[in-house]
Parts: sequence; C-alpha cells; structure tokens
Amino acid sequence: MSRNEIRIFCPATIANVSCGFDVLGVALDSVGDEMVIRKVPEKGIRITEITGQDLPRETHQNVAGVAGLALLAESGSKFGFEIEIHKKIKAGSGIGSSAASSTGAVWAINELLDRPFSPLQLVKFAMEGERLASGVAHADNVAPALFGGFTLVRSYEPLDIIPIHCPDQLYATVIHPQIEVRTSDSRKILKTHITLADGIKQWGNVGGLIAGLFTEDYDLIGRSLVDYIVEPIRSILIPGFDKIKSVSKEAGALGCGISGSGPSIFAFSKGEAKAREVAEKMTEVYQSIGIDYDVHVSKINTQGIKILD
Amino acid sequence: MSRNEIRIFCPATIANVSCGFDVLGVALDSVGDEMVIRKVPEKGIRITEITGQDLPRETHQNVAGVAGLALLAESGSKFGFEIEIHKKIKAGSGIGSSAASSTGAVWAINELLDRPFSPLQLVKFAMEGERLASGVAHADNVAPALFGGFTLVRSYEPLDIIPIHCPDQLYATVIHPQIEVRTSDSRKILKTHITLADGIKQWGNVGGLIAGLFTEDYDLIGRSLVDYIVEPIRSILIPGFDKIKSVSKEAGALGCGISGSGPSIFAFSKGEAKAREVAEKMTEVYQSIGIDYDVHVSKINTQGIKILD
Repeated sequence: MSRNEIRIFCPATIANVSCGFDVLGVALDSVGDEMVIRKVPEKGIRITEITGQDLPRETHQNVAGVAGLALLAESGSKFGFEIEIHKKIKAGSGIGSSAASSTGAVWAINELLDRPFSPLQLVKFAMEGERLASGVAHADNVAPALFGGFTLVRSYEPLDIIPIHCPDQLYATVIHPQIEVRTSDSRKILKTHITLADGIKQWGNVGGLIAGLFTEDYDLIGRSLVDYIVEPIRSILIPGFDKIKSVSKEAGALGCGISGSGPSIFAFSKGEAKAREVAEKMTEVYQSIGIDYDVHVSKINTQGIKILD
Repeated sequence: MSRNEIRIFCPATIANVSCGFDVLGVALDSVGDEMVIRKVPEKGIRITEITGQDLPRETHQNVAGVAGLALLAESGSKFGFEIEIHKKIKAGSGIGSSAASSTGAVWAINELLDRPFSPLQLVKFAMEGERLASGVAHADNVAPALFGGFTLVRSYEPLDIIPIHCPDQLYATVIHPQIEVRTSDSRKILKTHITLADGIKQWGNVGGLIAGLFTEDYDLIGRSLVDYIVEPIRSILIPGFDKIKSVSKEAGALGCGISGSGPSIFAFSKGEAKAREVAEKMTEVYQSIGIDYDVHVSKINTQGIKILD
C-alpha cells in the first residue's frame, strides 16, 4: 500500500445496550465523524485541524492524539502523522464521540503503516484515548467502532473482544437531548454493590440478547433489552426518559434504553420505517417539554470504520 | 395416540454451568432415570414403585407426584396416572435428580393425554416438584431436562426459556464425591449482594458462553466458563475441588466448575476421548484422598426426555 493519506468515516456507537453494562456495544451507520490522517516524515502526532467542535489540539490533550501516540510507541515507526478531525458526533452526547476519534486515529495509522497491529491491539491503543476522556480505559465503545456490529467485551484481563452476529433488519433510533452528562459524573452515581437477585436477572438478559442476535429473533432481542442495574439510577439525570421510553415502545420499538452513560436515548426497531416512526414519537416528547434535541435513525453498521473516497 | 403406558429416559442435568447461576442448564445423554407412567381410570397420581433410591412414595411428598398433580389440576383430565420411578441419579448429587423425576412425570402425562400443554407449561408444572425438593421453584434443571441441550432461563416473571445451540463435539465429565450437600443448605451460604465489578465479569462470561455455543467456538466456551460469584463460596463445601479443577484443565478440559449446587463437579471437553481422559485424572484425585465417587462421561443430550422401547 503506497498511499500517504486516508479519509475515513468513524461510526458513533451505543455502549451498554441496556442489559450489557460495560460489556456490550454496537456501531451506527449514518452517524459518525470524518477524519483525514496523513503520513509525514516528522515523527510524532500533530492535530492539524478540528471542525465541528471546540476540542483541544494539543496532542497529549486530544483523545485521537493520545491513542495515536500509544500506537506509535509500540510501532517503532520512522514516520509521524497529521490528523484532521471533522466532528459530527457531539462530545458528551453518549454515543461514543471520544471513541470515534481515538479509534479512527489508530485504525488509519495502522492502515498507513501496512497493518502491523491486530484489531485487538488497536482496541488497546484506542482505550488510551478513552482513559483521557473519562478516566477509565473502557472498551465498550471502541470495540464496536473498530469491529462493527455488536461486540462483547467478555473480559478486560486479558482483553477478549467477541463479535456478535447482527440481524439485517435491525435499526437504531437515537435521540440526544441538548444537555451534557459527563461520563465521569455519570459513573460516580452508580452503586458499588448490587443484589444477587438483580445480577441474575441482568445476566439472564445478556444471555437472551446474545441468543436473540444470533438467532435473529427480534422479539427475544426486545424482551432482553432490560436493565435492572444502571438505568434506574442514571435515567434520573435524563429529562423525559420514562416518557420517551413508553412512547417508543407504544410505537413498536423492540426496546429502549440509555445510550452509554447518556444523555442520549436509543431504541431498536425491526426495519427502517418503524425506526423513523419511533424517532417521530420521541421528538414529539422533547418538543412538548421544550428541550432541544438531535435525532438519528441508523441501520446497524456491521463494517466499523470505512474509507471514504 | 392410543397408548396407555410409556417408558422414558429422564436426563440428568448440570445447572448454572459456571457463569450462569440460576439461568443456565444443560442435559446429559448417558446419565438419567427411567420412569414408567400408566394412564388409569382412577383419578389422581399414585407412585407405585421406586427402585434405586429410598424416596417417599406418598404422592404429595414425592416430586414426581407433586409435579403431576400440578398438571392434572389444570388439565381437567378424567384419568389418573400410576408412576414407577427407577432412579439412577443419586438424590443430592447436584445433577438434577429431582428435576429428572418431576420433568419425566409431567412430560409423560402430557404425552398420554395427547399433549394438551406446551413445553413451557410443562416447565411450570415441573417447577412445583423443584419447590418441594429445595424450597425454591427454580427452572434451571427442569428446562434442559425438557428441551434438551443448553437452555437459558432469561426471566422468571414471566417465565421465558430460550434453547441455545449446542456444538456436536461437546462432552461433559461429571464426578460425584459421595458426600451430600442439600440444595437448600447450599443456597443459604450465598451472599445477598455482589460487587458491581464481579457482576460485570459474570455477565461478560454469560455473553461469551452463549456466543461460543452458537458459533461452535470451543475455546471461547472454555474461556467463558468462569464463575466469580458462587464457586468461590460453594467450592469450600466440596473436598478436593481446586485439585479436580486444576487436573481437569491440565488434561485439556475446556473448563470445569460446580454442577448445580454441588457436590458434583463437571468439566466440558471437545470430543469423547478428551472427556474420558479428564474423567481418569479426576478419579485419581479422589482415589488419592480416599473419597468414594461416581464418574460419568456423556455427550450433551440435545433431545431431552426420550421414549424407551
């Protein structure tokens, strides 16, 4: 491969997916950032341009910069890289804004170096960007951004990422109320202990969701989208959550929950038409209570990061 | 169907399967009870014969009797049933002895009545036998005994049983040290709360095990057979547990854990030859410390209860 510049789409992602706190994530197809990465003779990483968001351009303070440096530290590359970030995903929206940037950087650099690293190694580098963003090097957004589709972080020690089959007609609707919830704050309100009874219900639903995805049983996917652990606490931070959830399910969504640490709310539907109907019902709720929002309807992205021409 | 008598094989089952406490179970093929059920004009249920174990013959004190009565109460049948139970599974061994009897009774009665009830309804009736045996109407043994293969109890309210695909080369080795651990005692020592961190690792492994079963990824199945919640506590009640587990894994077992509430220990292997090697290594441990045991090697039973000629 002789190219020195690559332009990519970096997908937004929904982490947790209701029952799978800290282990499940899924990539979106029509929401994501664009990045341009250039191989240059000067070593190191420089963020040369950021559009769409006011984010730090200093390499060590930028998630893409930090993730890229983690890769370069292990690559022994004699090249350096310039990174342009064109943000479409809003920071703090709960659909993997930082993960898109970190993952895009390491994926593209790996391509431009002729792929010295495996996808699993790339996840580890990208996790360093997540550590900068939220204080915790979690993988539940970077894994689906890299692998596409649904991914399971089975274990962190050692890191074990399992791609999960995704049925073709699965669509996501995501609504982002224009309030900011920081991932670090959102983690602080969680309890350190849960009841064994709630734990049993939670892993029953994780098992059900994985089985539903493999067997393409949309009803089972919907029945399994229940979160006994995190949603009852975090949903308090999200205005109109209960109403959004009830209108989504009335409109025929398979299930509905908090995207990552919020404040975005996601719903899954079978088919695009249903997902658009759900979007309409969700927006009516925020219109009626006067909250600004973005709303997205997207097929599940089964490819991960994509090269743009 | 005009037959009035049916002779059946009722499989032993492994509940929990390491990571899936209270939700997962799997049926065995070469270990199980035999039962004969006869349709008779006199209403009610009579236990006419029990061989192999000293168990109560009074209908209301026998798990098969209680499960059968639960079915009859909803059937409006004008017939009654006689039940012979030929126990091969030892009570208190942790491989679903009571579940085999309860499930066999309701399955056979349903056949002799021309199947008025669905498999899910049969699980509910059989759970009444489990309530008599252990004080808790759990479904993690009766579900695999009825459906065969691996089953997930996704939810109890409402009851939702999900059959899970099983790879063809999966074999179980089960060793039963001749000590008795009562299910009710074994539940008492469990804590009512767990850490969120342990919960996350547990549902990561449940997801991994289900994914491994669907994709026939034996290594992933093995990596997922880890129990952070129950095994560290219950294994203390089982002599030689740690040694049995380490020799099993050294011999090439995919994973090893407590069967149900113990004291039986199970291991999974790829292929019968490996499962037999594991059995040999397990028995050497109990021989060396002077504990009597039974040991079984079995293919996974994907059919559930079977009619014998």
